[in-house]
Amino acid sequence: MSETKHTEFPRTERTTVRRKPDRGSYDRDLIYSILDEAFVCHLGLVHDGQPFVMPTNYVRDGDRLLLHGSTASRLMRTLASGAPLCLTVTLLDGIVFAPTATGHSVNYRSVVVLGKAEIVEGEATKMEAMHAFVNHVIRGRWEQVLAPTEQELKGTMVLQVPLREASAKVRTGFAVDDAKAYGAAWTGLVPMKWAAQTPIPDPRGNASIPVPENARNYSRTR
Amino acid sequence: MSETKHTEFPRTERTTVRRKPDRGSYDRDLIYSILDEAFVCHLGLVHDGQPFVMPTNYVRDGDRLLLHGSTASRLMRTLASGAPLCLTVTLLDGIVFAPTATGHSVNYRSVVVLGKAEIVEGEATKMEAMHAFVNHVIRGRWEQVLAPTEQELKGTMVLQVPLREASAKVRTGFAVDDAKAYGAAWTGLVPMKWAAQTPIPDPRGNASIPVPENARNYSRTR
Repeated sequence: MSETKHTEFPRTERTTVRRKPDRGSYDRDLIYSILDEAFVCHLGLVHDGQPFVMPTNYVRDGDRLLLHGSTASRLMRTLASGAPLCLTVTLLDGIVFAPTATGHSVNYRSVVVLGKAEIVEGEATKMEAMHAFVNHVIRGRWEQVLAPTEQELKGTMVLQVPLREASAKVRTGFAVDDAKAYGAAWTGLVPMKWAAQTPIPDPRGNASIPVPENARNYSRTR
Repeated sequence: MSETKHTEFPRTERTTVRRKPDRGSYDRDLIYSILDEAFVCHLGLVHDGQPFVMPTNYVRDGDRLLLHGSTASRLMRTLASGAPLCLTVTLLDGIVFAPTATGHSVNYRSVVVLGKAEIVEGEATKMEAMHAFVNHVIRGRWEQVLAPTEQELKGTMVLQVPLREASAKVRTGFAVDDAKAYGAAWTGLVPMKWAAQTPIPDPRGNASIPVPENARNYSRTR
């Protein structure tokens, strides 16, 4: 049973799901699967008592999340100072059609991570992080493009957020209204997907290169 | 020129876009169009110096946003107390394929709203808010389903956030790498869309009712 210690995150005061606790989960595999499916998070920070929430890109690397940005970015510098952060990822899976107005809902999978960021130093380590970012958003893209120059790496700050305090919240399935309410309206689910459309070539690009599989079938290759 | 006073939000210290300011906008029409296209926001609050970011449903009604939840919800009670909040909405529009690793980006439209929430009282007013919520997520659904009972309305807290401090940030178009970088790799855009899939009928539902247009063509009717 030596592996069980890794299967759940501890339920802390701050990450325990209180509202609809049956939707809460602390399962590491589930949390990691949600973090790996998305690549945009909403990052919360506090400045002078005011919360700020910004969308940003991330990638999971083992038991940590990586973030990156310009060394000139105020957000990155605040994060690097060790300010408490909340990083939330939400995948919207469907719209729930209920027989009552208040029974309506959405199906979703979300993860909340609490913690602090730390600077990742070293050219080789930063290069590995950039590799992970590019290939997380577009599989195999790193191998198709020009690697960052020394100058570009210098201008990029890479941060890591160790995954120590995290929970997931998941809603699946149909409406749960009283039986007597069903009958007047159609009820069911409309599943939703982030779907890639037909690629649009860059007019500045090399027209002799065919559209690669990771662009032509973007959603399928991720 | 009496209408121009409404066309832009004031650029406050807190909402001025500093990083890539050319992507920033304070245009009310643009901000409202983003708020109206989405229906899930990420809401940031502070508790004991720690930021918390939660996904939640909203609808714009004129110059305010409406939020709702159970009167038993800690989040709703904290909001109702007038705690400073940040409400962020992000629409991911596409993946930018650049010739260099660091040139990669995503196209997006986001809005950040800063402010405080206030309780909306009164049965009729709360009923109107519920109407707006349901029809914002599913057009015309309110007219198909059972309205909230007095008991359900009592258990629901409705909050409004006056739209006073807000900004948008938008990226569009292709990569902007140096001309000499183009040539080695295909470059372009993969547009992304939240796409509704085929509706799944609820096994508890009335099978004699045909799938309505707002479920059959969900994305098109929104």
